[in-house]
Amino acid sequence: MAVFDSATRPTEFAKHARDSMLTLFHHPFCPHSRFVRLSLDELSLAPRLVEERIWERRTEFLKLNPAGTTPVLLEEGMPPVPGAAIIAEYLDETHGSKLPPRQRLMPADSSARIEVRRLMSWFNDKLYEEVSGPIVMERVYKRFIPTSQGGGSPDTEVLRAARSNIKYHLAYIGWLIRGRDWLAGPSLTYADLAAAAHLSAADYLGDVPWSEDETARTWYARVKSRPAFRTLLNDTLPGLAPSASYANLDF
Amino acid sequence: MAVFDSATRPTEFAKHARDSMLTLFHHPFCPHSRFVRLSLDELSLAPRLVEERIWERRTEFLKLNPAGTTPVLLEEGMPPVPGAAIIAEYLDETHGSKLPPRQRLMPADSSARIEVRRLMSWFNDKLYEEVSGPIVMERVYKRFIPTSQGGGSPDTEVLRAARSNIKYHLAYIGWLIRGRDWLAGPSLTYADLAAAAHLSAADYLGDVPWSEDETARTWYARVKSRPAFRTLLNDTLPGLAPSASYANLDF
Repeated sequence: MAVFDSATRPTEFAKHARDSMLTLFHHPFCPHSRFVRLSLDELSLAPRLVEERIWERRTEFLKLNPAGTTPVLLEEGMPPVPGAAIIAEYLDETHGSKLPPRQRLMPADSSARIEVRRLMSWFNDKLYEEVSGPIVMERVYKRFIPTSQGGGSPDTEVLRAARSNIKYHLAYIGWLIRGRDWLAGPSLTYADLAAAAHLSAADYLGDVPWSEDETARTWYARVKSRPAFRTLLNDTLPGLAPSASYANLDF
Repeated sequence: MAVFDSATRPTEFAKHARDSMLTLFHHPFCPHSRFVRLSLDELSLAPRLVEERIWERRTEFLKLNPAGTTPVLLEEGMPPVPGAAIIAEYLDETHGSKLPPRQRLMPADSSARIEVRRLMSWFNDKLYEEVSGPIVMERVYKRFIPTSQGGGSPDTEVLRAARSNIKYHLAYIGWLIRGRDWLAGPSLTYADLAAAAHLSAADYLGDVPWSEDETARTWYARVKSRPAFRTLLNDTLPGLAPSASYANLDF
């Protein structure tokens, strides 16, 4: 049973026809996979999507990535590229560096690169550990993981901590945006896509208290209205409807 | 009270005189700081070392790195560079890329870069989480953290898990080295320095069961005999002597 139908939507197949050399092993709710999907779309790259449920520890998948985590990007003639940060570096070096400077998700300037990487890691590592990782594990993955392997009902204490932590992250996003056009500087970068990807997974579940920070909310509305976001907003999980604001661009 | 005297050793001051533009905020037992110290030395860069005890959450340090973690590299005219992976990328772009290909810690070829980054992350993230992070927290940091903040005696359950996990990592290192000269390919890279840095922190405490994998042991002996390793091997923690094999190149 496919949990999501994103891998087989006709629009995905149409895109796939353009760039059939890229395959992304992902999970629709994995925040790091969402980050890579946004990045690929911003770079006008359309991968074939393969849904991977990492808790099944599929042998063929472990051969691609011994760490057993999503996402993994496959490009013909290259070893598998595992993990959000490594895929971001790879995509910038092989595709992004051919774009005009303002369109690059990783700027060319050394000091700007430090800030983009710092914030990519802030969201992909720190926000994930404190917020989006626990929320997605407790509210989504545990529905599919057998109880013998730790699945089952959400741990309310873990969710309470994540829902408290998210407020500090929204405040930090608001603080950054009050001093800059985008999170890492004057143009959209991987930093914005990472933050938005992790928040989008929590937002689907209604776990982002947008009223906490108006500046963070308007920044997210800007990222969410980009064409790259459409593919994420169309994903729905059977049995778990998205929050009222999830796909609403004027939330 | 300085826990270590490495920041003020005469040899460190002599090196500092050569490259006074670099300052590294580190802790002598932080495995990621050790990785960066090895990398800097391999690149013939000698930073001024400043010992940071992150559990004190010093305001001035949090301004440099809001995440509050070591290491942080400061280079004149640049924003602070936080974290092992980001520092590695920065050093390669600003210094390593000027070296002959065989001396670079990050190769130029795309597919080789994927493998170096994959293994850097394997050791800096996965081995850290499963092995060196818990060992250093329980056996070193908890001596200095006030009991009100979680310091005190080591948690034996946590140590038991870390000491079990390390066997799988040694086996993986052995498996890689049976197919290659160095962990990520034909020459020494960041992957070797990351693995060796994390193992060196555990080795100081006698927590590396070298008899588990002879190939891993001989690989570590090779890395340990490099001049870059000397600065680490000379660090000692008052009240906690290093294991018998720690500074022995023929262990």
